[in-house]
Parts: sequence; C-alpha cells; structure tokens
Amino acid sequence: MTYQELNAQTVVAYIAEQPELQHFFKDFSQLVVTEIGDGNVNYVYRIKDEQSGRSVILKQAVPYLRCVGESFPLTRLRMDFEILALQTARKYCPAHVPEIFHHSSEQSLIVMQDLADHRILRGEIIKGTQFPSFAEHISSYMADTLFYTSDLHMASEDKKAMAKKFVNISLCKLTEDFVFSNPYIDHETNVYNEQLSQAAIDKVQKDQNVKVAVAQMRYKFKNNAQALLHGDLHIGSIMVNAHETYVIDPEFAFFGPMGFDVGAVIGNLFMSYFSHAHEDKIQGEQTKAHRAWLLETIEQVWLKFNHKFTELWLNHENKDEAAQWDYAGGVEAKKAYMQAYMSELFADTLGFAACKMMRRVLGLAKVADFADIEDLKARAEIERNIIDHATDMIVNRYQYNEICQLTELAKRIDG
Amino acid sequence: MTYQELNAQTVVAYIAEQPELQHFFKDFSQLVVTEIGDGNVNYVYRIKDEQSGRSVILKQAVPYLRCVGESFPLTRLRMDFEILALQTARKYCPAHVPEIFHHSSEQSLIVMQDLADHRILRGEIIKGTQFPSFAEHISSYMADTLFYTSDLHMASEDKKAMAKKFVNISLCKLTEDFVFSNPYIDHETNVYNEQLSQAAIDKVQKDQNVKVAVAQMRYKFKNNAQALLHGDLHIGSIMVNAHETYVIDPEFAFFGPMGFDVGAVIGNLFMSYFSHAHEDKIQGEQTKAHRAWLLETIEQVWLKFNHKFTELWLNHENKDEAAQWDYAGGVEAKKAYMQAYMSELFADTLGFAACKMMRRVLGLAKVADFADIEDLKARAEIERNIIDHATDMIVNRYQYNEICQLTELAKRIDG
Repeated sequence: MTYQELNAQTVVAYIAEQPELQHFFKDFSQLVVTEIGDGNVNYVYRIKDEQSGRSVILKQAVPYLRCVGESFPLTRLRMDFEILALQTARKYCPAHVPEIFHHSSEQSLIVMQDLADHRILRGEIIKGTQFPSFAEHISSYMADTLFYTSDLHMASEDKKAMAKKFVNISLCKLTEDFVFSNPYIDHETNVYNEQLSQAAIDKVQKDQNVKVAVAQMRYKFKNNAQALLHGDLHIGSIMVNAHETYVIDPEFAFFGPMGFDVGAVIGNLFMSYFSHAHEDKIQGEQTKAHRAWLLETIEQVWLKFNHKFTELWLNHENKDEAAQWDYAGGVEAKKAYMQAYMSELFADTLGFAACKMMRRVLGLAKVADFADIEDLKARAEIERNIIDHATDMIVNRYQYNEICQLTELAKRIDG
Repeated sequence: MTYQELNAQTVVAYIAEQPELQHFFKDFSQLVVTEIGDGNVNYVYRIKDEQSGRSVILKQAVPYLRCVGESFPLTRLRMDFEILALQTARKYCPAHVPEIFHHSSEQSLIVMQDLADHRILRGEIIKGTQFPSFAEHISSYMADTLFYTSDLHMASEDKKAMAKKFVNISLCKLTEDFVFSNPYIDHETNVYNEQLSQAAIDKVQKDQNVKVAVAQMRYKFKNNAQALLHGDLHIGSIMVNAHETYVIDPEFAFFGPMGFDVGAVIGNLFMSYFSHAHEDKIQGEQTKAHRAWLLETIEQVWLKFNHKFTELWLNHENKDEAAQWDYAGGVEAKKAYMQAYMSELFADTLGFAACKMMRRVLGLAKVADFADIEDLKARAEIERNIIDHATDMIVNRYQYNEICQLTELAKRIDG
C-alpha cells in the first residue's frame, strides 16, 4: 500500500487491518480517536475503547514539518529511525521505553503503548512537581542504551553494521545547525529576548575560549560514533508519573558521543533550576525545595549513570575487550582505563550540556521553563545566569571532575 | 556477467571487451601477460604491448585469502572499497594516485596505470636508497586526502553519505585484531623472535600505561570517523622513483582517525631507522647517512603535513565552519582551535605509529626491514629498541609536542 496520510477518520480502519492489533481491541466500531500531537512535527492520535479503557497511540510522520506545512519538507525517513531506535532501546531497557504494537516504514507510522497515566516531564517540573525516582530511571535508561550499543559491549562487526543503519543525515544536520552552529553566530534564525544584553550574547558568540570549545563539541558530535544515542534527550522527550519514566521520540537517533545524551538531561535540568529563580522570590520555601531537588537530581543522574555504566562494563564487556585485561595486573589496568574513559565522558557531558543550554537562550527553539516568563527582565536575568553557567562549564570541562562542582557553580551564579 | 576468476590466459580477452580500453592498445593479439602479484591477497597481472611499450595493471580479488587458499574466505567486497577509495583519493590528489582505466564491482577487478618505473618504497629503503622528494609527496597525499574528506571541508550531509559507503567491516576487523588486539596479549597468532626477552614482550603486554594507551588508540580507531583513510599506509603500500610517489592498495579504506594514516608512515620509517642499526656496525658512513635521511624524513613528513593541512584549512574550509569565525577576533579564535586540533592529531599520530610498530614486532605480520635479518640476536636488539621507542611514544603522546623530540628519542635509544 503506498503512503497515505491518515486522519482522525481513517486511523481506525487502518489499525483494524493490522494483524498485530486484532486482539488488542474487542470492537473496532466503538473506538474513539483524538488527535493529541503538540502540532510541531508529526500527527499523533490516541485510539481508545472507552468501555474497556484500552488504548494505543498512533504516530505518523508526514513528508514536511507539520507546524509549517508542505513548504518545509522533512523526510519521512525520520520515522524509520524512530522505529529502529525504539526497538533497540526497548531491547536493552524495556522498563523505560514504550511497547511497540505495530510499525510500518511504508506508512511512516508506529502504533505503541499509550502513556495515558504519564505526563511530559518538562511541564511537570515547571509546575513544581518532583519525581524522586527520575534520576534512578533515566540513569538506567542511559547506562543500558549507551553501554550495550557501544564497542565496549558489541562485537565490532555488529556495531558497525548497526551504525550504518543509523546514518541519520537530515536530523543530524538539524542538530548541527540549531544546537552547534547558529546560536554561536549572529544568525537570522536566532531569537533573542530583547532584554538580554549584547554583552551576554557576545559571551557566547565572541569569546575565544567559548568559540573554540563549541567547535570542539561540534566536531565531536559529527565524528564520534560511540553508541546509539537518543539524540534529543531533553526533558520534553521524557514522560513520567510518580512511579515510572518513559523515554519517547528518538527520531534523532544516530551513533554519536554518549555525552550528548547525558548532557541533554543535565543541561535541561540546569535550565529548569535557573528558571525557577524567578518564582523563588515569589513563592519562597516551596520553590526552594524544588530547586534543591533539581540540583540533587542533576548530581544523582551523573553519579548513578557513572555507577551503572561502569558496573555494566565490569560485567558485560565483550570478549575481545575482556581478553585484553586477562593477566596478572590486568584488573588494575582496566580500572585505570575505565577511569580515564569516564573522565572524558564527564567532560563531554559538561560540554554538550553547555551547548544545549546556550542554544536554548540564543537559538530558535526555546524551552518553556524560561521562555514562558512574561517579565522579560526577569527572564533575561535567568538567561544570563544560564549563559554564565554554560560558558564556564564548557570552557573548564576538563578541569571539573565532580558533578557537585557544577551544582555549586549554579548556586554561586544565582545566589 | 557473473563473477569469474581470471587467469593469465583469460585476462586479455576480458580487457579487449571493455570499451574504456579499446583505444589503449592497438593490437590485442600481441599483448604479453605476466602475473606479478606478491601472492598474498589478490591476483595482479601486467598486460603489455611489447612493441609500443604500453601496459596496464589488472588486479582482481578472489573470495578468499590467496596465500592460504579457499579455506580462508575473504570477502570480494574489498575490491569495491579499493575502487571507491582510489577514485576518491585520485580526485583530491591525482599526482600521487594511479590512474584508473576500468573497474568492475561484479568481477571485483580494476585495470589501472602500470607503475613500471616505480618500486615498492620498503624494498628500496631496505636497500639504502634515499628519496629526497618522498616527504614532500606523501605529506601532500595525506593532507589532500584527509583534509578534503573531513568535516572541515565537506558539507556535513555529503560526508555522512560518503562515510556510509565506506563502512568496511571485514577489513577494519582485521586491523582491530592484528594491529590493536592480538599483539598486546599472548595470542596464538603472534610470532615472537625466540631471542626477544620476555621482559621486552611484557613491556607491551603487561605494562599498565601501555595497555591503557593501546586501549585508547583501539577505541579511537573504532569510533572516530574523521576522514577517509587509506587504512594501511605502510611503506609497502607506496611506490616510488626518484621523481614520483604513488600510493596504492587502499582496500582497508574507511572513515577513521587521521592520525592512523600519518602514524603508519612515521611508525614504519622509525622501524626502518632502527632496523638499519644492524648494518650500521658493518657498513659505516653510508648507512649512517641513510639513517640520518630516515630521521630527517620523519620530521619532514610531519612538518610538511602539518603545514599543508593547516593551509588547506585556512583556504578551503566549508562555508558553515567558516561562518563561525567571521567576526572581529574570529581569526585568532580559529587559530587557537586549529592549534588544539593539530596537537590532538599529533598525539594521535604518535599513538597510532606506536601501535603499528609494536604489532610488527609481536604480531603475526612482520616487516622485512628487521624480519629478514638472520642474526636473531641482532634482530632482537632492533626489536627491543622499537618496543622501547614505541612504548615511550604512546604513553607520553600528549607530553610530546614537537616531532624532533621523537627523532631525538630514537637516537638516544639506539645510540
């Protein structure tokens, strides 16, 4: 069947025809369809049997950027990457990846588990909700997906064959442009808060140390095929409730530097932290506790990830690598190698986190955490703090060696 | 036409049918065929019209390792990589890459320029011949092929599409095994000179700093897709005469770390240097001059490569990258970035050179420079010097910052 753009009227007929879904619903004639996409990129439908309460999500990519329209073509191939990435991530970390019921490359669509009891993490954090298990969950997701798709675990041939399937040219180019290039020059796609001073902007766009560091991170993003990344792991790609955490929307997936995923989580949490300074002055203790939780979460994300990743390495290293350390003294040598490896990954994490932060302040795509603040002067103060923190973090990424140094830095900057 | 293994009797009929070769020879019935392959991997035929003196080389891959036979399968796909790599290298550096007249993926063969007036560089260096233009030529080859296939020059989309074509799984695995893995453990494929002490072997296989550094280079080889490498650029893949230099046999080509090619050249020249110590005691001044030329050549290879590569970067950077430095102060920032980049590339070069050296001493494949020396004690002394030099070089690769420090080190070690 050639590609057909579905709509709320046609989705039921489509899923009724799919063998994998024959037994999911009892009565296809009773299903209620709601379009729930945020309207930016794809179409997302919830298909629900109100009687049984059972439901699925159908997500379909269209060959253009939905929010702009057909004048902005965007390859439907992105759904192939999303399908493959979801399958792979679910293989290694089923607890934090939604179940897939049906997928079609031809129709560029996927039918998957409805996370009806979950909410987008960013919105919840903005509202001041805390998720005590989030650090535990996201660190597991990252340790599992990154370790198991790296050369530390996979056989060399398997990893290369897999990386070849994930050459994700169009979506990597979007990241290269909007995360690593445009925000660091006076680019026409940038959007600045009119209350943000030129001096703050210049700190990102004209400081030699920052420019060199950003170039190094951009180069690393383009060249370092360490593991299968989610590729867009900000807190808007994460759905949570009090007990569970799911990672969604991996259409940017490709083989890249691990620190890009870890840095995405940490950088976004730092932005949330700085953004809550505004209410801090208004709401007092409650916001203080929320901000303390954010910093604590940042620390725990790194510490738990570091611990879990090294545990996986100790226990699930591939046999060719393991053979290298199989001699008297080999255990110590391997530990020295692991330590150097994790130090480099930590520096990468800080560098990528910083890019994610700077681009949200100066680039096209903002985050609601601060962009929804109507008082532009208050927002500018937050943005300046984010810039101060990010520029310090990226320039000195090899000098820092403990995550608490970065949470301390954050407290100093807006203290 | 399905794949057919050619032989000395059938090659003429084959080339007579190829449109590209119709006008190369006047009379196909007069052609003389000689099999000139070294017998290791492929079949290589010289096809010559004795009257006109015109000749071509036909090289065909067979689906196994020729020197072992059909019991050792080796994918014919290697010829696809060789063809594509030759075409690409010739596009960027025609002066040092043979001309291709015809190629066939189906038949896994290539018909190309006969370098009849040229000799394999390794053999000539062993004999004591010097090539004053070699550093000039090989530095041009490396600067051109590495720079023009990197993200510094290519548009991101083009580079990724090209890298995808060069996912060279089988031949990368050979390198990973025989250059980066087996020599550093007591592997069954290793071959040791019986006169080489266990202490010397342990220095490679059990020293913590060496093991960690080798693991880091192995990881970089697997993960860093910087540019299209030759992938096997030792001095047996280079043909020379007094005026010209050609690089051949790029079947190991893939997108990898640039320092692997540069290090291959430098590491092999260091091994030649150490190997000539044996004759040094016998032949006096003449060998001294040859060894001085080798060290001078090592220095010139790096210095000229560094200079040419940075000149290309200054003049042929892609427009997206160039836009990043287009502001007051941008020139200085770019220079700082280039300097950091070249320092890292220098460290990579030393690290990869060292792996290439250690593997020739302890691994399966030797180099004739020292392996043909019949006095095993004298050979062991050379091998120990190579190990001493390589282990120092790889462990301290980030401490060294001038190539002359490494030639000085070589002189100290066997002085």
